[in-house]
Amino acid sequence: MLRIHDYKGFPNPARIRIAIQEKGLHDRVSFVAVDVPAGEHKGAAFLARNPAGAVPVLELDDGTHIAECTAITEFLDHLTGEPVLTGGTARDRAIIHMMQRRAEAGLLDAVATYFHHATPGLGPHIETYQCREWGEKSRERAVAGMRYLDQVVGQQPYIAGNRFTMADITTFAGLLFADFAKIDLPADLVHLKAWRVRVSERPSISSL
Amino acid sequence: MLRIHDYKGFPNPARIRIAIQEKGLHDRVSFVAVDVPAGEHKGAAFLARNPAGAVPVLELDDGTHIAECTAITEFLDHLTGEPVLTGGTARDRAIIHMMQRRAEAGLLDAVATYFHHATPGLGPHIETYQCREWGEKSRERAVAGMRYLDQVVGQQPYIAGNRFTMADITTFAGLLFADFAKIDLPADLVHLKAWRVRVSERPSISSL
Repeated sequence: MLRIHDYKGFPNPARIRIAIQEKGLHDRVSFVAVDVPAGEHKGAAFLARNPAGAVPVLELDDGTHIAECTAITEFLDHLTGEPVLTGGTARDRAIIHMMQRRAEAGLLDAVATYFHHATPGLGPHIETYQCREWGEKSRERAVAGMRYLDQVVGQQPYIAGNRFTMADITTFAGLLFADFAKIDLPADLVHLKAWRVRVSERPSISSL
Repeated sequence: MLRIHDYKGFPNPARIRIAIQEKGLHDRVSFVAVDVPAGEHKGAAFLARNPAGAVPVLELDDGTHIAECTAITEFLDHLTGEPVLTGGTARDRAIIHMMQRRAEAGLLDAVATYFHHATPGLGPHIETYQCREWGEKSRERAVAGMRYLDQVVGQQPYIAGNRFTMADITTFAGLLFADFAKIDLPADLVHLKAWRVRVSERPSISSL
């Protein structure tokens, strides 16, 4: 049995919960709740699992811990069946990883930086260092990231082409985090809005 | 023939040049020089190849452009032979991607942020926005990243285990960038220093 240490409802945990449903692995996974609002992810016990102090973390049967959502997704995608989330051919893998990284750096991580640096974030007991200027700049970066992704899905149905992949999951989680951080999706980004409605109908996402 | 648009000697281009040598693909690749010091990577022609305005970019025969070093490495690693840089099994892939990401976020990107925000970087015509405070903080983050990676290679020969992988390439490029940005490797990080000497002897790196 695989164990996922996470906190339900948060954006990065959502990435892995979506991947598990897409791969049909829900019967092989159990969840262990980490009390993120109380700062449990910054405590010694959790830091031994992931020195970066972030959820989610995948724990394998042999005690190995896997952090970083792209790494956990690679694991799940190669565990069973064909890799559908990360691509089969060299070209598909390259495009999916490129678009995943753009969605991550340009949207999800930018939103996270705004949230943790320019808002109260998870509270003063967790946000022990904040750089407000970089946080505010990152809000601008997040909106620019939305604008780029809107262009992408104006030209193709999904973030990395014609199929739903890891890059869509990262984008969805980025918009989820943006809602939470109160960064509105600009009204003129009609393609990204339509994409969001469409992917939200997938069972992996509607069941979140 | 594959085309790599890059600037020789810079850290991210080095990641892909090392991967090409490790995979024995040098006969299938040609290089196109991008004048990064002159800001060519921020001009319209290059931004059409990579909207992030960064080298390297891989151009395929069909005109597809692949940016982001992890994505290019995935392509090269799956193009020919067994994937040796990104791993074969689900578990190997997960560990390699996790350690790659830690080396990237904790070292290479942290050094880059210091360089572009808290030093003159590539000059005022390119560094049009700088957040000095975040740049200085990122220098601290980079040194913390070195310290973490030193612990890792104190316990195993390579960053992701017993073999040289993409995670070692990212770490090597991070230290290369740190030299360039004048962030010294702390003297007590003896494991990371020994690792660096060892990987520097690989033909893919000594021929850079």
